[in-house]
Amino acid sequence: MRDFSQDHRWLSINTATVRKSRGQDLPLTDILDACARHGIRAISPWRDQVAAAGLKTVSAQVRALGLELSGYCRGGMFPSLDAAGQQAARDDNRRAVDEACELAAPCLVLVVGSLPGALAGQAAHKDLQRARDQVRDGIEELFGYAKAAGMPLAIEPLHPMYAGDRACINTMEQALDVCDALDPDKTGALGVAVDVYHVWWDPKLQAQIERAGKSRLLAFHVCDWLTPTTDLLNDRGMMGDGVIDIPRLRGWVEAQGFQGYSEVEIFSTGNWWQREHDEVLRTCIERHRSAV
Amino acid sequence: MRDFSQDHRWLSINTATVRKSRGQDLPLTDILDACARHGIRAISPWRDQVAAAGLKTVSAQVRALGLELSGYCRGGMFPSLDAAGQQAARDDNRRAVDEACELAAPCLVLVVGSLPGALAGQAAHKDLQRARDQVRDGIEELFGYAKAAGMPLAIEPLHPMYAGDRACINTMEQALDVCDALDPDKTGALGVAVDVYHVWWDPKLQAQIERAGKSRLLAFHVCDWLTPTTDLLNDRGMMGDGVIDIPRLRGWVEAQGFQGYSEVEIFSTGNWWQREHDEVLRTCIERHRSAV
Repeated sequence: MRDFSQDHRWLSINTATVRKSRGQDLPLTDILDACARHGIRAISPWRDQVAAAGLKTVSAQVRALGLELSGYCRGGMFPSLDAAGQQAARDDNRRAVDEACELAAPCLVLVVGSLPGALAGQAAHKDLQRARDQVRDGIEELFGYAKAAGMPLAIEPLHPMYAGDRACINTMEQALDVCDALDPDKTGALGVAVDVYHVWWDPKLQAQIERAGKSRLLAFHVCDWLTPTTDLLNDRGMMGDGVIDIPRLRGWVEAQGFQGYSEVEIFSTGNWWQREHDEVLRTCIERHRSAV
Repeated sequence: MRDFSQDHRWLSINTATVRKSRGQDLPLTDILDACARHGIRAISPWRDQVAAAGLKTVSAQVRALGLELSGYCRGGMFPSLDAAGQQAARDDNRRAVDEACELAAPCLVLVVGSLPGALAGQAAHKDLQRARDQVRDGIEELFGYAKAAGMPLAIEPLHPMYAGDRACINTMEQALDVCDALDPDKTGALGVAVDVYHVWWDPKLQAQIERAGKSRLLAFHVCDWLTPTTDLLNDRGMMGDGVIDIPRLRGWVEAQGFQGYSEVEIFSTGNWWQREHDEVLRTCIERHRSAV
């Protein structure tokens, strides 16, 4: 297992972590400058932030600053009610692949979606299996496009508390079943994004990380689970402030040969998004060294 | 599958559902009277409510009203930091078995606990496997006592969002692994409480219900998962108001021969606990017929 205590060579910042500074939106271009200033070598930006700044602008800035990407957030949201919805999802996901290529991301992260309408508060139906079938079909379709473009797809199993609205793939086992079905040769073109926040509770986690192996472990995300957690989406903790044994989980991933970035992804309306972003980045660096 | 649309013969009320009426604590004795008044035949009371009213008082009232229990809430909370804590948990769980016997409950429901101190906001450690080992040992120890008393133990897998503080058994598969280890002959003395709120998201749910079979399916709890859910503990929905396909899940359970009560267990600070309890009970009856 790599020693992170001496530097932050393997720290990546998911740009949602500093999406806001003192409660105000922080443009992606400012985030990238701040990361470079703190000696952070990698980022994982969100599509909406890239769109707001302009893809070409961001791409040029990333190159100029010598930054790498640890992933691109995100494709997915496959289920829909009708053919028009499916077509729109398909088109949008292809654009996400193209953008990921432009930014030289190592993978496109997939948050796969679930019951249509649920995220807006009104699910159109309750058939979780139907959503899961659509997700599987959607990934299969996109996989062909992404393979041709040379962009690996990383399925991110989301915590079961998001099963109804954000993602109906909720365990590593389930994600790897899809990988095995669509990419039986383990080519590295299809795999998983392991976010400790989503999977730390899983009694089968270690076994499934071993099952995944190096070729399917495409990204590793960290934050922490607070007790109590006051919001289902935006109350993630800084590494070390919660109950996840992050070093143990990183050890399991690295035992399979994973040698990539440890990407910090924190959504925190009440705490970290209220702070000044330089303080947040300094804390990420410090905790990367002491608690990851 | 039984037809629930014509009556509420198989409705049970978990007394937490009407723990408060218009925001005020409602004594258990009043809850029992109200249930009887509404023609509800079964309840599942909580230990703190029973203690407040007096065990003998409640036991006599239950008999006088001709009520049955669908379970007794709850034993468990096994993990602790030291021998004194383990002894205290052991003694308390034995008292819970004794109380369940006095109330003629069909089973004692186990919420097994997790990291010591986490529920109070400060976990003493982050070793989930250690907590899980203590839970397994604790259930084994209690199982001997409960068997002798003739009181079945129902392990309740809790939603993974409670893995850190309330219960480190989080899937049916994990609960059934414990059952298979401790009661390989499927005697009916050890099984699971299936609460749709905790398990609905699980892609292996149907398979694990089939694995459980009739002898291990000791209780069936219903409520609904709201989108959005605004609180991790106390924002459960009334059946029909959320995204869980409850009839499908009941069908899976009944396909194994389960013929017991459908127990409504709703914690709802902002909605149902603010309403008058008679309205809540009327709604439970209506939804039991239309949405379960």
